[in-house]
Amino acid sequence: MAAPIKTRERIVQASLELFNSQGERNVTTNHIAAHLGISPGNLYYHFRNKQAIIAELFAAYEARVDAILRVPEGRAMTVEDKTFYLEALLAEMWAYRFLHRDLEHLLDADPELAARYRLFARHCLSNAVVIYQGFVEAGILLMDAAQIEALALNSWIIMTSWVRFLCTTRGDPGDLSEELMRRGIYQVLALEGGYTAPSARAAVDTLYHKLHVPLEQVIP
Amino acid sequence: MAAPIKTRERIVQASLELFNSQGERNVTTNHIAAHLGISPGNLYYHFRNKQAIIAELFAAYEARVDAILRVPEGRAMTVEDKTFYLEALLAEMWAYRFLHRDLEHLLDADPELAARYRLFARHCLSNAVVIYQGFVEAGILLMDAAQIEALALNSWIIMTSWVRFLCTTRGDPGDLSEELMRRGIYQVLALEGGYTAPSARAAVDTLYHKLHVPLEQVIP
Repeated sequence: MAAPIKTRERIVQASLELFNSQGERNVTTNHIAAHLGISPGNLYYHFRNKQAIIAELFAAYEARVDAILRVPEGRAMTVEDKTFYLEALLAEMWAYRFLHRDLEHLLDADPELAARYRLFARHCLSNAVVIYQGFVEAGILLMDAAQIEALALNSWIIMTSWVRFLCTTRGDPGDLSEELMRRGIYQVLALEGGYTAPSARAAVDTLYHKLHVPLEQVIP
Repeated sequence: MAAPIKTRERIVQASLELFNSQGERNVTTNHIAAHLGISPGNLYYHFRNKQAIIAELFAAYEARVDAILRVPEGRAMTVEDKTFYLEALLAEMWAYRFLHRDLEHLLDADPELAARYRLFARHCLSNAVVIYQGFVEAGILLMDAAQIEALALNSWIIMTSWVRFLCTTRGDPGDLSEELMRRGIYQVLALEGGYTAPSARAAVDTLYHKLHVPLEQVIP
């Protein structure tokens, strides 16, 4: 029975593409079925409605972010770890950008998803605290516990609000590019700018240069 | 002809109260008229629709924020100025919290408001850069131009995303309190934590204590 699984995966993949390119609100299950050249009935065989597809996409996003937000075991953290976190999160934000763009609408429409998102947010915040703590222990950041807590919270807000910031200040939600997303990751790195230890400054500066996108490109 | 002006102002004030307490989406012009004990026709005499009321509220919010984001003339900035900016912005965010809660929806529904908001965002960002620059010139913050630019952008995003963060992670959008808003202002102050000059540290720490709200109260 390989075929039904394949169709199910194709539906998920096509939905993600359409949600990202057209906005979730503008895409119906009929659009998705037409896009795949399958009947609406075939789609409903796999997913009872659009919310069920969104829930599956959110679960995948959640699992991928969760896999990123781990600390390495048995060794101190390095600036390369920082590069990894930022770039991996950038890739997921880009891959699932419809979630960030339409988040409040999606949560309003589905109380179960809203409850799940609340747990996810708390979980990510705890993990972010542990990761920043790891950078402090490795001597890369110089911060106390209250500063780490505030930093973790600010990085969560910048990360999850960046796409909306782009949409509200640029005007055209369809013109999101990976470069525009990269500036968001730069902004997350900038949150800890004042706390970088002198010994890590050169390595972190290299990362700043790598992620930098001029503000004129973000807000023309 | 004092009476019509008074009714107009009462409509604006009642709309603000209802939007803040019930969410703009849940309030119709009929609700507003009923709340004031006036006929819908009387309301329409002053405002052709709900969007016109929202536009008027936004203009008032914009004017108030604009009046706050000025640098003092003829003297260096002080930590007291920082206290003023944060507390004054907190008061406006609280007074017009429906705007922050429903922003994307409001902008989607009104292209004219969306265009106006884009200009407002740019204007606030420029002003924020000038203000942070003033703190650098006064020796309170130690930052370069790229850091100031990133800080101004991050403070705009935290400020405008805080209410949404509360709504998505707490679950009950009706339970916003001024204390919850204060933690948002604390988060804005925390953005510059790593850049505070040693000579200003004690005064800024006092401000941290004044604004601090434990995270357990924000995300129970």
